[in-house]
Amino acid sequence: MTLAVLPNSRVRDGVLTAVDLAATFVLAVECALAGVQADFDLFGILVLAFVGSVGGGVIRDLLLGEHPPAPFRDWRYAALALAATASVVAASLVLGRIGDFTPPLAIDVFEAVGLALAAVAGARKSMDYKLNGASVVIIATVNGCGGGIIRDVLSARVPRVLHEDFYATAALAGATIMVVLVKRFGLRKGVAGAVAGVAIFALRTAALIGEWRLPHLR
Amino acid sequence: MTLAVLPNSRVRDGVLTAVDLAATFVLAVECALAGVQADFDLFGILVLAFVGSVGGGVIRDLLLGEHPPAPFRDWRYAALALAATASVVAASLVLGRIGDFTPPLAIDVFEAVGLALAAVAGARKSMDYKLNGASVVIIATVNGCGGGIIRDVLSARVPRVLHEDFYATAALAGATIMVVLVKRFGLRKGVAGAVAGVAIFALRTAALIGEWRLPHLR
Amino acid sequence: MTLAVLPNSRVRDGVLTAVDLAATFVLAVECALAGVQADFDLFGILVLAFVGSVGGGVIRDLLLGEHPPAPFRDWRYAALALAATASVVAASLVLGRIGDFTPPLAIDVFEAVGLALAAVAGARKSMDYKLNGASVVIIATVNGCGGGIIRDVLSARVPRVLHEDFYATAALAGATIMVVLVKRFGLRKGVAGAVAGVAIFALRTAALIGEWRLPHLR
Repeated sequence: MTLAVLPNSRVRDGVLTAVDLAATFVLAVECALAGVQADFDLFGILVLAFVGSVGGGVIRDLLLGEHPPAPFRDWRYAALALAATASVVAASLVLGRIGDFTPPLAIDVFEAVGLALAAVAGARKSMDYKLNGASVVIIATVNGCGGGIIRDVLSARVPRVLHEDFYATAALAGATIMVVLVKRFGLRKGVAGAVAGVAIFALRTAALIGEWRLPHLR
Repeated sequence: MTLAVLPNSRVRDGVLTAVDLAATFVLAVECALAGVQADFDLFGILVLAFVGSVGGGVIRDLLLGEHPPAPFRDWRYAALALAATASVVAASLVLGRIGDFTPPLAIDVFEAVGLALAAVAGARKSMDYKLNGASVVIIATVNGCGGGIIRDVLSARVPRVLHEDFYATAALAGATIMVVLVKRFGLRKGVAGAVAGVAIFALRTAALIGEWRLPHLR
Repeated sequence: MTLAVLPNSRVRDGVLTAVDLAATFVLAVECALAGVQADFDLFGILVLAFVGSVGGGVIRDLLLGEHPPAPFRDWRYAALALAATASVVAASLVLGRIGDFTPPLAIDVFEAVGLALAAVAGARKSMDYKLNGASVVIIATVNGCGGGIIRDVLSARVPRVLHEDFYATAALAGATIMVVLVKRFGLRKGVAGAVAGVAIFALRTAALIGEWRLPHLR
């Protein structure tokens, strides 16, 4: 009994992979734009596009001991970063200054799909390693927002997720739901992952629309 | 023949673990406070508490190839970071603004116990991997101060240990003593570790009281 | 049939090792000077010298899963960082303020040898792991410029290679040449590595003399 959103697992996996690659591309474009805004050169923009879009998965695999990390076993991630950089260059040539461009809400909402996929993938993979629940949640969260943290550190800025966006918290909450569903209620990982993914997407989208922010103590 | 401070190894290990967890909690609280001061949100404060208190051990295990790193195999480290964040939130609700709070000297001295434990643990573990003396000292030092470095990098600040505190140098000196005692004089690791730990604690405490600083060349 | 620049492989390997260690020392001195300029204390200067000169190799080995990373298996790298720091301290005592010292072009050109060696070593090692071409190029580039990136992050600055220097791009281009020569044209790795190394050195030197900069989009 699987969550029968899609008829069979081969089609579902194909769709998930396509969505994952599309979300990675969107994230890479956003990171490349961040590089333009930080006045990086072409190489720096390419680095931000790659590191920002796959960094979370790389840290996850380093923590779990999977070598080399997944983004180094599939050439498509590097190709997406290159394509994202090329797109930004092309847009710059056509449109002129793009440093002040702010993506429309729709882009952020689509990126929320990527966040959900990354966090669920991280939770699932660390469950395969029989990690305790707390660690599963941490690794899922790192998978979801690690790339953005590296991107901001390389820009010598305080990572946005640590003080502004309600972003990582959606991943953290979804991963917690998944752990509870699997470890307490014995749900299958696939089903629990689907529930968690939807929860992460819903939370992040609600946060974007409602402009949620977490409390500060200062 | 062991250093008979504590009667038998089970009691000693229990005491060491308790002290280690207590020191980790103290460090997590300090890092959470640093997050408040840097105007992080609740999620960011939690991240700093976790990363700052266990980051050194994580880097150590990544370098040595122990997967997943120790703080991901024991849920208590994540729980301590959560408890530290909760304590800081509670203190903030009761006391109001806590962003300007500076911990009393006693706290820093207690933290020196944590530094000694971490550095000795790092030295001991890397000796088990038959690393050369220089690498043992480096990994012990990273174990002692890596978390604070990540905390400061995430706050977009120059790490304090690199330009202000006489902190890492105590770990470096103690680890050097330990390596010499074991490799030159053939002492058992347990005994050498106890000597090194006391040396680190004494050096760091002296540095705190005497407000030691290392020379600058500028 | 080998690139007969040097008569036999033992002599050639000995020369390569000597050049590698010399280049590492030069890089460590430059990083130690960066520590002086950033007003680090003695410990911080030592950390920058070590991390800046071997950081790229450490990240490479963490990504490939070689534990502990090469610079922790050979005590000479730590010794070089210590010697570089000692040299900078000595120069400071003799010459007075050295914080404003800028190395002559000759030093930068010699450092380009180190860049070429590091990038080719990274490409070769990741080819041994049967990585795809894109990943080989990425790891070679990281090997060449990862240390400088960590150095700048620890100084709370935007890494120079991401917005100023034409440096990493030389490594990236050379590694791409090497991958194409080996994977498309079936050249032996040793020959392709020699060609790539010369290309990297030539590109970087031309960039230094011509003051090349990559385009910015802002």
